[in-house]
Amino acid sequence: MIKGDFFMPKLIFARHGKSEWNKADKFTGWVDVDLAPEGVEEAKDAGQKLKEAGIEFDIAYTSVLTRAIKTCHYILEETDQLWVPEVKSWRLNERHYGALQGLNKQNTRDKYGDEQVHIWRRSYDTLPPLTDPEPDRRYADLDPRTIPGGENLKVTLERALPFWEDQIAPALREGKTVLVAAHGNSLRALAKHIEGISDEDIMDLEIPTGKPSVYELNDDLTVKEKYYL
Amino acid sequence: MIKGDFFMPKLIFARHGKSEWNKADKFTGWVDVDLAPEGVEEAKDAGQKLKEAGIEFDIAYTSVLTRAIKTCHYILEETDQLWVPEVKSWRLNERHYGALQGLNKQNTRDKYGDEQVHIWRRSYDTLPPLTDPEPDRRYADLDPRTIPGGENLKVTLERALPFWEDQIAPALREGKTVLVAAHGNSLRALAKHIEGISDEDIMDLEIPTGKPSVYELNDDLTVKEKYYL
Repeated sequence: MIKGDFFMPKLIFARHGKSEWNKADKFTGWVDVDLAPEGVEEAKDAGQKLKEAGIEFDIAYTSVLTRAIKTCHYILEETDQLWVPEVKSWRLNERHYGALQGLNKQNTRDKYGDEQVHIWRRSYDTLPPLTDPEPDRRYADLDPRTIPGGENLKVTLERALPFWEDQIAPALREGKTVLVAAHGNSLRALAKHIEGISDEDIMDLEIPTGKPSVYELNDDLTVKEKYYL
Repeated sequence: MIKGDFFMPKLIFARHGKSEWNKADKFTGWVDVDLAPEGVEEAKDAGQKLKEAGIEFDIAYTSVLTRAIKTCHYILEETDQLWVPEVKSWRLNERHYGALQGLNKQNTRDKYGDEQVHIWRRSYDTLPPLTDPEPDRRYADLDPRTIPGGENLKVTLERALPFWEDQIAPALREGKTVLVAAHGNSLRALAKHIEGISDEDIMDLEIPTGKPSVYELNDDLTVKEKYYL
């Protein structure tokens, strides 16, 4: 938030870059794999672009997955804003890929066919094959029924939306500049809500890595302008 | 918090290691200097020790100064707990060293005499020469009268104590395991309160860097056991 700029809410999306499992071409979802060295460089690049743009954050939101949290930290560090408050939530996690998590994408295509895998990846409301969640201390306080066994983008949006409503939107309504460092599908889900994109069109929206998306918003949180750095 | 361990509050202090200004032998205080490479290694070592001890954090608190925040992040990363909630507060900042900030310690001794510098460094309630706070976005929401021009350990404790009372103590009373990654004097101030150390004795307490202090506490937050990892 800059003086004289009090009622110009600004929202920045940063999608984490390459992870170790992106390199191995595996379905990742909620599995907590680290950034690959290329992903670290993408995060630092994103930070430098935000620094050059002079963007001053008031608050940062991220998921409870290491690759997004580290992307958040690299961005805050590169912009000399490591002191900015940071809130982590499972609601910003990547889409849970169910029983596909950990499988190599080509092996999965070989086994289930290109068409089926395409549907799992690109349909708005088809669920992947489900899995039993493994115990994980980071979700220990949740009602076990809350923890998904697999998600489509529709479900991802449904569980991300309360976090938007309860935390991100109120911060923006105060005129804050907000960083959301997260994942391809959780950011896509939020973009669908913010931009009013249809169920049909949303799967074509690609959130870039290493290039932050900037939304300049009106007071009512409709989009005034959107651009990539 | 481990199952079966619900009412065993545990508090871990991690003091940041060597910073760029420690190396230059300068008074630092609230100046936001980065960790030196040695300080990064100390933070990672502290994380490894905590990992080997099997300590599972429920929440982490740190200051709004980069060297403490990075220490916190390295510890959480080394222990595979980067997802743990983290709260930053100026109340955990290092003691503000007033007009001495940025001065080389030897030069200061040459100018003011060993005795005077010793008093500034080691007296519980003597203030350093004061300075006018520079505008800093991280303190922009504070009442300007709250921002110190220089602090002794007494004042450091007075402004850290509300954070202990409002945030750290309630978390411990819930039986949580709490990380506080901060500075020599803010941790010393909290240790004075927790351990009931006298005004005379407190300046002799050295909080080690790279070696986390573990307090196992009773339900009423008195100290059951204290040890270094």
